[in-house]
Amino acid sequence: MPRLWGSRFKGEFGELSKKFTFSVHYDSKLALYDCLGSIAHAEMLSETGIIPKKDASDITKGLKKIVSEIEKGTYVFEPTSEDVHTDIQNRLKKMIGRPADRLHAARSRNDQVVTDVRLYCMDHIQAIIAMIRKLQRSIVTFADKHQDVIIPGYTHLQAAQVVLLSHHMLAYVEMLERDKDRFVDALKRVAINPLGSCALSGSSLPIDRNSVTKKLGFLETSANSMDSVADRDFILETLSDISITGVHLSRMCEDLILWVTSEFNFIKLDDAFCTGSSIMPHKKNPDVLELIRGSSSKFPGHLMELTILMKGLPLTYNRDMQLDKPALFGSVETIQAMLTLMSELFGGIKVNRERLAERVKDEYFFSVDILEYLVRKGASYREAHDTVGVIVKECLDRGSKLADMSITNLKKYSMYFETDVKNLLTPEISVQIKRSVGSTNPAMVKAQITRWKNRLK
Amino acid sequence: MPRLWGSRFKGEFGELSKKFTFSVHYDSKLALYDCLGSIAHAEMLSETGIIPKKDASDITKGLKKIVSEIEKGTYVFEPTSEDVHTDIQNRLKKMIGRPADRLHAARSRNDQVVTDVRLYCMDHIQAIIAMIRKLQRSIVTFADKHQDVIIPGYTHLQAAQVVLLSHHMLAYVEMLERDKDRFVDALKRVAINPLGSCALSGSSLPIDRNSVTKKLGFLETSANSMDSVADRDFILETLSDISITGVHLSRMCEDLILWVTSEFNFIKLDDAFCTGSSIMPHKKNPDVLELIRGSSSKFPGHLMELTILMKGLPLTYNRDMQLDKPALFGSVETIQAMLTLMSELFGGIKVNRERLAERVKDEYFFSVDILEYLVRKGASYREAHDTVGVIVKECLDRGSKLADMSITNLKKYSMYFETDVKNLLTPEISVQIKRSVGSTNPAMVKAQITRWKNRLK
Amino acid sequence: MPRLWGSRFKGEFGELSKKFTFSVHYDSKLALYDCLGSIAHAEMLSETGIIPKKDASDITKGLKKIVSEIEKGTYVFEPTSEDVHTDIQNRLKKMIGRPADRLHAARSRNDQVVTDVRLYCMDHIQAIIAMIRKLQRSIVTFADKHQDVIIPGYTHLQAAQVVLLSHHMLAYVEMLERDKDRFVDALKRVAINPLGSCALSGSSLPIDRNSVTKKLGFLETSANSMDSVADRDFILETLSDISITGVHLSRMCEDLILWVTSEFNFIKLDDAFCTGSSIMPHKKNPDVLELIRGSSSKFPGHLMELTILMKGLPLTYNRDMQLDKPALFGSVETIQAMLTLMSELFGGIKVNRERLAERVKDEYFFSVDILEYLVRKGASYREAHDTVGVIVKECLDRGSKLADMSITNLKKYSMYFETDVKNLLTPEISVQIKRSVGSTNPAMVKAQITRWKNRLK
Amino acid sequence: MPRLWGSRFKGEFGELSKKFTFSVHYDSKLALYDCLGSIAHAEMLSETGIIPKKDASDITKGLKKIVSEIEKGTYVFEPTSEDVHTDIQNRLKKMIGRPADRLHAARSRNDQVVTDVRLYCMDHIQAIIAMIRKLQRSIVTFADKHQDVIIPGYTHLQAAQVVLLSHHMLAYVEMLERDKDRFVDALKRVAINPLGSCALSGSSLPIDRNSVTKKLGFLETSANSMDSVADRDFILETLSDISITGVHLSRMCEDLILWVTSEFNFIKLDDAFCTGSSIMPHKKNPDVLELIRGSSSKFPGHLMELTILMKGLPLTYNRDMQLDKPALFGSVETIQAMLTLMSELFGGIKVNRERLAERVKDEYFFSVDILEYLVRKGASYREAHDTVGVIVKECLDRGSKLADMSITNLKKYSMYFETDVKNLLTPEISVQIKRSVGSTNPAMVKAQITRWKNRLK
Repeated sequence: MPRLWGSRFKGEFGELSKKFTFSVHYDSKLALYDCLGSIAHAEMLSETGIIPKKDASDITKGLKKIVSEIEKGTYVFEPTSEDVHTDIQNRLKKMIGRPADRLHAARSRNDQVVTDVRLYCMDHIQAIIAMIRKLQRSIVTFADKHQDVIIPGYTHLQAAQVVLLSHHMLAYVEMLERDKDRFVDALKRVAINPLGSCALSGSSLPIDRNSVTKKLGFLETSANSMDSVADRDFILETLSDISITGVHLSRMCEDLILWVTSEFNFIKLDDAFCTGSSIMPHKKNPDVLELIRGSSSKFPGHLMELTILMKGLPLTYNRDMQLDKPALFGSVETIQAMLTLMSELFGGIKVNRERLAERVKDEYFFSVDILEYLVRKGASYREAHDTVGVIVKECLDRGSKLADMSITNLKKYSMYFETDVKNLLTPEISVQIKRSVGSTNPAMVKAQITRWKNRLK
Repeated sequence: MPRLWGSRFKGEFGELSKKFTFSVHYDSKLALYDCLGSIAHAEMLSETGIIPKKDASDITKGLKKIVSEIEKGTYVFEPTSEDVHTDIQNRLKKMIGRPADRLHAARSRNDQVVTDVRLYCMDHIQAIIAMIRKLQRSIVTFADKHQDVIIPGYTHLQAAQVVLLSHHMLAYVEMLERDKDRFVDALKRVAINPLGSCALSGSSLPIDRNSVTKKLGFLETSANSMDSVADRDFILETLSDISITGVHLSRMCEDLILWVTSEFNFIKLDDAFCTGSSIMPHKKNPDVLELIRGSSSKFPGHLMELTILMKGLPLTYNRDMQLDKPALFGSVETIQAMLTLMSELFGGIKVNRERLAERVKDEYFFSVDILEYLVRKGASYREAHDTVGVIVKECLDRGSKLADMSITNLKKYSMYFETDVKNLLTPEISVQIKRSVGSTNPAMVKAQITRWKNRLK
Repeated sequence: MPRLWGSRFKGEFGELSKKFTFSVHYDSKLALYDCLGSIAHAEMLSETGIIPKKDASDITKGLKKIVSEIEKGTYVFEPTSEDVHTDIQNRLKKMIGRPADRLHAARSRNDQVVTDVRLYCMDHIQAIIAMIRKLQRSIVTFADKHQDVIIPGYTHLQAAQVVLLSHHMLAYVEMLERDKDRFVDALKRVAINPLGSCALSGSSLPIDRNSVTKKLGFLETSANSMDSVADRDFILETLSDISITGVHLSRMCEDLILWVTSEFNFIKLDDAFCTGSSIMPHKKNPDVLELIRGSSSKFPGHLMELTILMKGLPLTYNRDMQLDKPALFGSVETIQAMLTLMSELFGGIKVNRERLAERVKDEYFFSVDILEYLVRKGASYREAHDTVGVIVKECLDRGSKLADMSITNLKKYSMYFETDVKNLLTPEISVQIKRSVGSTNPAMVKAQITRWKNRLK
Repeated sequence: MPRLWGSRFKGEFGELSKKFTFSVHYDSKLALYDCLGSIAHAEMLSETGIIPKKDASDITKGLKKIVSEIEKGTYVFEPTSEDVHTDIQNRLKKMIGRPADRLHAARSRNDQVVTDVRLYCMDHIQAIIAMIRKLQRSIVTFADKHQDVIIPGYTHLQAAQVVLLSHHMLAYVEMLERDKDRFVDALKRVAINPLGSCALSGSSLPIDRNSVTKKLGFLETSANSMDSVADRDFILETLSDISITGVHLSRMCEDLILWVTSEFNFIKLDDAFCTGSSIMPHKKNPDVLELIRGSSSKFPGHLMELTILMKGLPLTYNRDMQLDKPALFGSVETIQAMLTLMSELFGGIKVNRERLAERVKDEYFFSVDILEYLVRKGASYREAHDTVGVIVKECLDRGSKLADMSITNLKKYSMYFETDVKNLLTPEISVQIKRSVGSTNPAMVKAQITRWKNRLK
């Protein structure tokens, strides 16, 4: 095979070097976008008279055939191809002959590859947004179904106050909403057309870049050819957004992993998401949750990899940047799998209502309610805090309960106590008396669920 | 000193533990925001009748006095205070006595601290945006002043084609514009009011969270109390955005560091940004550039730190999250210093016009121009590429120049060569013949400069 | 103030630049090592006749005085000093006058600073090793005191088999032992003397570098002057080692944080390591554990920072490398605080023996014992596994217990069952029948405790 | 297919879950080690009478057949297998029938997988050490061949003093030597046998773990079964060591990339390691160097990934840990390719002696020599530094040369100047007068080369 773009070279490119530098085994994932980009490019070259209409027509026909093979999964990449662009170029040449030689006018691999990656990102970010939406819907459905279930809420992993299970789960819906927003914002910076920037300085041929921008669904044409081929901040941003989403999923998994322990025992997972142990036949391990939590480590790893890669590189394109792809593709595919699995998983969660009903009875859950009761009656916050603190300490010391203390006795601690304090001290009351926006008050949570159901329709 | 919030405790909090857990030595940077948050909170508590108007008035007066001390730099933090909130609370108590005890109603440190950090971020992100703007202006001024200077453009750090120095610099203005956009987008997710979420479940007191939202300049009131105290994605996003900006600055520094070597010798830096060597008196080291490049490593470091910190934490607040602050503050302060220094630095760059004029004469810079010439004349891209490749190789082998070859001779390589090919082969022509949007064409670059000057006014 | 090393400069070094580049606010932590290095250097310069004996004597006397001030904490750094070396040099000059001017012969700040940092690392790595040892002793003491306590052992955070609490804790002693080993190995590469490498090429003065090596307690003299000033791998290695130790501590904290939840309720922590909540008076939060877990995030953050910093820097010294210090110092100080606190913490753990005795009774803990019973009786592993699996499933379905099944009934599942199977099924038996090296067998664990006590004496 | 280890389960494991959790597509790289481990295990089970000799013999024969297929590359993994252990177990069952069912006694996948990974690391660390050795030899050969070549030495990327090219290259040999040392040290902690730790608590069967340790070439038997299955610090250490080696290679590449620019023009690379440009036929890009530099980003990325993965996981095994493999394998394979390519690359470097001879003539390179000359004559370092500084500044201002100044003139700057100062001022003298250990003195560098040649034989 003649050396690619190498008529100037005398020596042969080493076998080792080839193995190390060739990328078709990973950048083949760009094949579809490479074809789409080339079709738009060829059409524009034809429209502007840079190449003959007939040649352009041959090219686009050939490329459309390749697209259909890629979509059907029948396109075969030559493992000896340097990269996906070359592979498709070679194939096109074989299919249509000499007209293929005209395709590369007014572009270089520098702008071509970044066009492909931008198209890949546009496509996959939209898919991720849809998957987040689907996960949100799963969580909202789960929350809706368990609106009345009260669970302990934790800070420092110490049971603190009771909250609605649905309120807890909607916290994740909020996080995911911000994740979606972040991706939507990223799209504005991803969907910029670099094609026609050529190697670094633009072209002396009369190309129409704005036409290509429209054909490919980009929002804007890039304004500086050097920036276009040199920068990869849109990948760093995509990975940052994925990484934050990963943190959210890892926390959700951590919560669920705790809840399926025998010690917490709040929920059961469907067998479809668990595996057994080779040596402990009674075990039911939450493998999928663990692997989602574990997989969330990949994103910051990839983000670091590409940040290190780019840091301190002089303008414009450097070959190091070829390595942006495995990290990007790996993160995109992993987050997609994680989101999909999480969506499925919620349908199979069984809530252990008896256990929870028992668990939330502990009256220490209501100490803040008593504190706020005292404040409502006129105590200062500090007074109220100290009063409740002393009572709790004495109850702990004596093993007694606040519910069993007489009002007379309670009044010794604070003059603000009246008989209505005994109306507190149940989990149902505890959530109902919450009044602040965003609180765990059942009516408010119900309204949130309705709001989300409408938004996520 | 009585133990904070600890009436329930019998044992003493260890000295070692104190040293390890106390945070006033770093979170004192939140003091201003803590006061502003408390003022708004107190006003709202008064408006809603939760605390007496008189007490609220005492509180806000006291806090405003503290604010003015903080702004004057005269406020002194007690090193024995657990954190900034406690320090200010204690000070307020000393100033106004018992009314201070009412301030903490309907909030907890969980929502208080995240309110402070959000206010800090809102303030500092806006400052960073202004600093990026200032740096963009410096670069545009520099580009404007050197509109006619032509330099080699690099890919793979190999000189490739000539470009305008101004075009090269505007590439950075583009990157910085996207950086600014990213911060602007982040603000939407930062400026959300969590106050009133209390420990995790909201409050049973009749607070008006939306009023606090308005008073503090937040855009929205948070919709889920658990999410409000549990999540730190706004910090991760801020650090991600800073990290990407850092990558851009590191690359700018790398370019400039290369350009000030004796080997490149394209520019000279003002002495204000260089230092000497203790042992080599002739050296003039670009220390500031190196330290900006080096400092860009802090951001991904901090981003990793906080990603690792948050990953897999169960809801809601965990004490680990206290450690979000040193990383955030460190990154914010460092990027601010870097942006400011870079802005200053551009005013002191002297361009070595003679050296550059000499450097860009090499005719290999124009091979793409010849290639595109042949395409314009009717050659296919591939043919043209091969033709130029062969000529270059022969010139290299013989040490001859393309400019010295006769047309007759050139026609042996391609029939498309005509005498007008000799009009190419100068750097001035090379940039002028570029026509594509975003190219290094001088008229286009000039238009870009004008556009930027207007946008950055 | 005259510009440092700047007689060649005409312009002034900018104020902003100073603030950004000066390092005395963090590298002052090297002061002691800087003095020790200078004393050895001066002695050598005197011994080799490069400087007059009298001047050397003045220098060392002056420096020793500074050392004693540093050790007493009375030495005051000038905030206007560029760095710690300059600060001490200036102070020495003030103390002893002109002889101080001779000190800098045959060294540059490039080799001086890395000498200081290496001495810092040697000192602090040894301190860290001692602290790990102390923590190991605390854990072994704790294990020794609770030799008979049986707890559930977890995989996938699902209770799997019973193990000795002491066995669980000794797992951490093993990890810490490897951590220590790693630091010991690192010392070999840290304790290499770079002094005398000067800026990068060595000196033409007749210095005796090996003499300095001995004086300062280094193991070897560096063999290549360029490597000496260019490389920071000893810092990367130190941070890597700290980072791994941090992972171990984070896991230990995670275990303990789980164990202090109401749901697990295995242990109680001393109040000295917990704090209360401002709004939930009954809470006892394991803050110290959470902050140790959280602080373990700093190390990989710092390691990333310095890896990014160093990656792709050309030889030899680049100013970026000045930024190695805050990350190194931050990690060293944090791991030291973490190790010390963990050591203290173990003394205050109260084990909830009643709860644990109850918790380990669940007979599913013994399924592997039954499985291995069947294998001992002649079943293949697979057969035995399936037998136990089926029994467990049926017991779960029926809510019955294996202990209540008759032998006749059991024989229906496997002919290998005999009456002695009923001897299993208690936690005490379960640990006693373990026989493999490293298992949770009480005699073996006891032997391990004895071995550790001897090793850690 | 019946569900693996799942006789206790009623539901089916979901298709999505399978895809996400199955690992045979990456852990198949452990196949060889899995077989070797199983052979040793089976032999031990037979020796200790736990399984019949005949069955053990069938098992080992079967496994040896599989080993030979793996080595020949003919072994085919079932894509539907959960993991490599299952795949081999299933295949063995098909080959030998029921005796295969006895193999899994006294082990679990928890200890089996970590045994495999440790064997993988032992094998590959040794290979990496050999590859580093080979690279060192290549560099030493290159240094040897160019012993007389003098180049500028850089600090801050500013040409500082002249050094031998061989001295510069030996700096990398030193770094690589430390890299090797680090891997050798790691082996002590990698080569520890965890097999027989079973799920987490050890076995009640009379196994002989030490026998397995010997058979498999491990150095030690692990002392704590919980640590054995829970910890992955040996992987973190391996990745840390690879990451540091990667930093070294990235810096070597950066040096070489600078040297092949037209501006530096110190060396030329063999065409085997370069590629052309599709649009600039004259370009010769150092792609292999760029990709090695870029690939060095993978290691810290992988290290971060696994540090994040492990941080805060409770004991013992968690499924997250399955994800340790892709990162480990990826790093190992990449560093091996990088080392091999670098070794090859040195043979093809052509040094541009003429250019270098010209480049090192600049007399500012010798300012430190003059400074040390003055110190030898009796000046204090400070005086000498100032003297040279002033002269340099005046020469720069006037465009004159120090070599052209008369002694009379020079004496105006310092009384220590004598005529022999004129003997300095050449690059050859500059390197020859260096005397300190580790300096760029040609005799010393030559001795280093000889020492390395002997050590690396």
